Amino acid sequence: MFLFCVISVSPAWFSASESHDSELQALNSELSQWTDSPDPKRPPHTYRDGSTIDWLYEENLERQRKNRLRSQRGAKGILLPTLDTMKMWFVIVATGIGVGVTGASLDVLVKWLGDLREGRCSYGFFYNQVACCSGLDPGEICTEWRTWSEWFSVHSILGQSLLQSFVYMALAVVFAGSAAILVQTYAPYAFHTGIPEIKAILGGYVLDAFLSPWTLLIKGVGLALSVASGLSLGKEGPLVHVACCMAYNLSGFFPQFRHNEAQKRKLLAAAAAAGVSVAFGSPLGGVLFGLEELETFANETEVIWRGFVTSVIAAVSLQYVDPFGTSKLVLFQVTSGSDTWRAFELVPWLFLGVIGGILGSLLIKLNVAAAVYRRNSIMHEWPVLEVIGVSAITAAISYLVVFLRVQSSELVANLFQECDASKGDYHGLCNPVAMWRNVFLLTLTATVKIGLTAWTFGMMVPAGIFLPTIAIGASLGRAVGLLTQGMYRAHPTSWIFSSCPPDPTVRCISPGFYAVIGASAMLGGVTRMTISLVVILFELTGALSHVLPIMISVMVSKWVGDAFGEGGIYTAWIAMRRYPWLPSVEYKDQGEVAAQVMRPVDELVVIENRKCTLKELDALLKAHEFHGFPVVQEGQLLGYAIRDRLRAFLSMLSTGAATEQSEQICSFLPIRSEDPGSADLSPVLEKAVLQLRKEVPQELVVNMFQKLSLRHVLFTQSGKLTGMMTKSDVVSFLNAHFPHAAALAVPPGQSPWP
Amino acid sequence: MFLFCVISVSPAWFSASESHDSELQALNSELSQWTDSPDPKRPPHTYRDGSTIDWLYEENLERQRKNRLRSQRGAKGILLPTLDTMKMWFVIVATGIGVGVTGASLDVLVKWLGDLREGRCSYGFFYNQVACCSGLDPGEICTEWRTWSEWFSVHSILGQSLLQSFVYMALAVVFAGSAAILVQTYAPYAFHTGIPEIKAILGGYVLDAFLSPWTLLIKGVGLALSVASGLSLGKEGPLVHVACCMAYNLSGFFPQFRHNEAQKRKLLAAAAAAGVSVAFGSPLGGVLFGLEELETFANETEVIWRGFVTSVIAAVSLQYVDPFGTSKLVLFQVTSGSDTWRAFELVPWLFLGVIGGILGSLLIKLNVAAAVYRRNSIMHEWPVLEVIGVSAITAAISYLVVFLRVQSSELVANLFQECDASKGDYHGLCNPVAMWRNVFLLTLTATVKIGLTAWTFGMMVPAGIFLPTIAIGASLGRAVGLLTQGMYRAHPTSWIFSSCPPDPTVRCISPGFYAVIGASAMLGGVTRMTISLVVILFELTGALSHVLPIMISVMVSKWVGDAFGEGGIYTAWIAMRRYPWLPSVEYKDQGEVAAQVMRPVDELVVIENRKCTLKELDALLKAHEFHGFPVVQEGQLLGYAIRDRLRAFLSMLSTGAATEQSEQICSFLPIRSEDPGSADLSPVLEKAVLQLRKEVPQELVVNMFQKLSLRHVLFTQSGKLTGMMTKSDVVSFLNAHFPHAAALAVPPGQSPWP
Repeated sequence: MFLFCVISVSPAWFSASESHDSELQALNSELSQWTDSPDPKRPPHTYRDGSTIDWLYEENLERQRKNRLRSQRGAKGILLPTLDTMKMWFVIVATGIGVGVTGASLDVLVKWLGDLREGRCSYGFFYNQVACCSGLDPGEICTEWRTWSEWFSVHSILGQSLLQSFVYMALAVVFAGSAAILVQTYAPYAFHTGIPEIKAILGGYVLDAFLSPWTLLIKGVGLALSVASGLSLGKEGPLVHVACCMAYNLSGFFPQFRHNEAQKRKLLAAAAAAGVSVAFGSPLGGVLFGLEELETFANETEVIWRGFVTSVIAAVSLQYVDPFGTSKLVLFQVTSGSDTWRAFELVPWLFLGVIGGILGSLLIKLNVAAAVYRRNSIMHEWPVLEVIGVSAITAAISYLVVFLRVQSSELVANLFQECDASKGDYHGLCNPVAMWRNVFLLTLTATVKIGLTAWTFGMMVPAGIFLPTIAIGASLGRAVGLLTQGMYRAHPTSWIFSSCPPDPTVRCISPGFYAVIGASAMLGGVTRMTISLVVILFELTGALSHVLPIMISVMVSKWVGDAFGEGGIYTAWIAMRRYPWLPSVEYKDQGEVAAQVMRPVDELVVIENRKCTLKELDALLKAHEFHGFPVVQEGQLLGYAIRDRLRAFLSMLSTGAATEQSEQICSFLPIRSEDPGSADLSPVLEKAVLQLRKEVPQELVVNMFQKLSLRHVLFTQSGKLTGMMTKSDVVSFLNAHFPHAAALAVPPGQSPWP
Repeated sequence: MFLFCVISVSPAWFSASESHDSELQALNSELSQWTDSPDPKRPPHTYRDGSTIDWLYEENLERQRKNRLRSQRGAKGILLPTLDTMKMWFVIVATGIGVGVTGASLDVLVKWLGDLREGRCSYGFFYNQVACCSGLDPGEICTEWRTWSEWFSVHSILGQSLLQSFVYMALAVVFAGSAAILVQTYAPYAFHTGIPEIKAILGGYVLDAFLSPWTLLIKGVGLALSVASGLSLGKEGPLVHVACCMAYNLSGFFPQFRHNEAQKRKLLAAAAAAGVSVAFGSPLGGVLFGLEELETFANETEVIWRGFVTSVIAAVSLQYVDPFGTSKLVLFQVTSGSDTWRAFELVPWLFLGVIGGILGSLLIKLNVAAAVYRRNSIMHEWPVLEVIGVSAITAAISYLVVFLRVQSSELVANLFQECDASKGDYHGLCNPVAMWRNVFLLTLTATVKIGLTAWTFGMMVPAGIFLPTIAIGASLGRAVGLLTQGMYRAHPTSWIFSSCPPDPTVRCISPGFYAVIGASAMLGGVTRMTISLVVILFELTGALSHVLPIMISVMVSKWVGDAFGEGGIYTAWIAMRRYPWLPSVEYKDQGEVAAQVMRPVDELVVIENRKCTLKELDALLKAHEFHGFPVVQEGQLLGYAIRDRLRAFLSMLSTGAATEQSEQICSFLPIRSEDPGSADLSPVLEKAVLQLRKEVPQELVVNMFQKLSLRHVLFTQSGKLTGMMTKSDVVSFLNAHFPHAAALAVPPGQSPWP
């Protein structure tokens, strides 16, 4: 090994002053044994949780591995790469099917647990209400399903309602508490939605604990429990986490992924799209969600294609399992008939858009405040008790308001549905006489849900925010629709409604579609997503002509929301946790240059070539947590030394007698002749580091960090080091306007909960 | 003006050695008068056709313009930016509506011209057959529509067929010839599809003649004529060109776009999506086409969003105009019923995928060979005669085969449609007895069409390649479907068909869907598009479960096609025309470094600071066509001088007496004291240029060119210039494997035809 260090090694990465091609090739193969050990048991480069991967290094590794496969003689040279690709497609297809089946199983489990809070099936404990009552002729009353008061043969009315509400709330608390206990005991990372962490991971952050098999299991089970407990949360975001866990663990079977962080992330991106696809029954929406929210691979058609394949397979698997027995992928999928919309309806819709923006921003601010408060209060020490308390309160409040009592997905499905004599009346929603009652109840529902969601999203249970947001928006939208409809019924001949058909029995205003508009506006205000949102809702409703109003409301809500503060809820959480994630927003500087934000050279910890000993280097590594150190010689920049590589090289060198070696002078340039007093550390030096002048516009630097996924950039002037900028610097700098940045930051490697 | 040059000016772009903030601001405002003349009549920087824009400069201009608007006092500071944004949305919406209406008008025009080849309406020359015969009761025979033999009262059978075929072919020739003459006389850039040029323009290439108002008009009219003439071409690609022309000319009304090339291109990207949306009735497909084929703005959500809005508005406008009276957006939109597919059908579908890949590659190679041959033969001198000849041959051949005689879109619509007793039999296609005849005719159709399309795509008429490719694929697919159906009917109890329903009257195999699969495979093989293709076809057919087979066939055809040669047909044309367009493909080097492909410093034309006179600089600019020159001082790199800026500055300086000034020494560093012998050229120097070491991997350099849209990169070592690489170098380098690269290259500014 020591031989390598003395000979000047120079692969593509590390270059000597003279590099001849043949020498290059020979030394390349020798060093490759050190840089990328083909021995799968000893991976060359392990990252600790909390660090950021080196994209170029990982891509380089993958390229070398593929070249090794292709350069095999004969049939092996064709067979092995094909096998390689097939392994990747196996993971893709298996993930798709797995996500689809998991989504279906979750639906079934949630339905059963939810029904359990009301009653049970007389002939089988594990049947939900629909399955229990299946096989009946229409019109026949179902006697197999017994409510709890029937089961325990309580006959007094008071006793019945007491028992029902008691069981309802008790089971809510039991479910929520179990979810919290499971998360706390087995998988602390399984709480919350997971999308902020996935965004950071796809951006290069390392957080392996977040994707462990236990997290997968607990997230799935905990999700079913928390949804069934009636807490104000949804399963969409967590499904993305589950999908990514699945892909991560499936890929762990194959060394080509296990040892390459960049390849792993490409699979995760595809899996994330599948998660969204299953959550909404929208494969295209899943792909566009991946493109919009998880922007890392937006330029790589290959990754987008894989995401699409995974999404479709997941959706088709979900359809095949058919959890609701209706061949609908999602409970609240609606077929909007041939209803056309009229120009005057743009007024209430624009109003909904504005409301969505305002309330969305409010929800984000409340949620952030709640999270910060929770962190700094005693509740941070007792998360399970907090969950139990909140679920009890939620159950109590929900029991009082009819629209809160039902499960959110069922509520949304009915709000989206137009009133139809054949479909029955959903808790009096279609009763034209009870308009004001409905408007009041819906507005109350929305208000209460905003409060509950702001607190729930951040507790120690798996929780998503999509469904509650849709429910809030749908309630408000339906309310506005009912009001508009009421106005129309009161003044059918007014000039406003002149475009309505003259026959009053033909429906002119469709409150169900207003609910869809409200939902899109609210989602736009909370998540600030645009295209993926429209596509998801388009695939939920179906008609092309209805896409225009959805687009307008999403656009308006985003503009209004951005006026109150840029960035959706996931961006806020990423900033609070201080993940090193760079948003892809176009950064526009005000004519400033990089010199104003970089770290000047006097503030940096640099290594002076030939002016340190191995012992001093060791102490330097222990003293500072930096990712790496610039190496200079009389001010001139030689290159950059990455901590992990330096540490690994130092430990490799210090095998023999400790004292003489540790006094050796460090030399980052290749040593010509044998010099026992110097240690050749030149293989460690990364010379191909980007250098810029400090006068470049800030915009250019930020752009480079975003588009090239860099970790650091050095600033030089005529070869002399003038400063440095790292990805974390850019992240802090971009987040400077956010008041609660790093409020929930957790030191890497530690669990987010005590 | 001269005052600026003596004082050291230093805005964000050009920096002196010491830059104090206040000095910076003051000088910034002074220089801004020179760099971005608010005078809309005198744009600061005009590009010649054939050059590449400077993205960073244009973005900088836009940023300064926006800052100027926002920094206005009072209400103006809010109103002006809002007005600004509204102008942009006006262009977007107007383009969308315009494209939708144009698409509808084209459909109507093509239908009328096409029908005119068969006959005419007795009471109005400008009615097509459907309009002429409207208002009849079902079952009533239409007497208003007269074929030409009826019109001219020819009664003998021989006379009738002679007259019909004569008029059919004569009008084909007249239409095609008129289209060619219009293109030749008024708008030489209106030929071909336009997508390769649009890709290059979006990548930064300048080709204003391609988007002139005349080109818009001639492309539209010529397209209708060429489609109606029966030539083997489609209107999809040209519609994208028309949409971009429209956006370009609409944006020309507003100075903010007229003078900013980057902003113009963002609008063009949105318009291109609208063009595809109208061509296929698929707004999502349009957006994904923009993302996949015109990758430049894939990372910018804002641009994607605008593309989506434009696409939806265009599709809704098209639907509103309703050119076919059926509220279908596209003629061959089908509603696939609840037909499920069975596992054994994957065998013929995989076969279709492989065939699609093979024939697609064949079509590309034939087309390239034809284009090269045409360029080097006498046909290049007589394009109109070529068009006339080919249209006569096409009409003659088509008249003989029934499936070629009808218009391609009508053929495809019927091939996609399943056989239904109520819908009638399309030229005997549904006749189970005539299976072999149909298979033979369909295969013949496909074969002949491949040959005709390979020649037609590249002639001097507006021509798209999508529809002929779809027709070829649909014919082959239907043939395979008929064969499979025949096999099933012959052996209904075989184990292969065990998953078919036992009742033979229920359809088990749907040949119409096989046609869709065939079309997707062929399109995949020719264009190598993936996601956008699947989305377009998905929106054409509708059912989610059918997406999976479409995806599989597209994937297989792409793999098979890539085995014969990477890149679709548009990439081939871009390479032939040698546009400076960088594909977004992931470039993987074989361990090579940039040093091996860059231009070393000895081969470069550099400017030595203080060693040249203004006269020598002028001569240098005239002698070399380079985009710019590095400026060095004793080997040390000072910066980069762009030709246009240098020329403009030189002409500004040389206002006075020619001789003394032209002998002034050029100084690219600011001059401290007044020195009449030196001319301060420091404002011209671009110091913020990217410098790399020549040992960086090639992959990194190509990646940077792709993602940052750079034009050039300089290589330095300790401040000394070692080499340079430009975008054209990277393009040539990436195209090195393509045999006909630059075969059709045209010097910039010249028309592609003599």
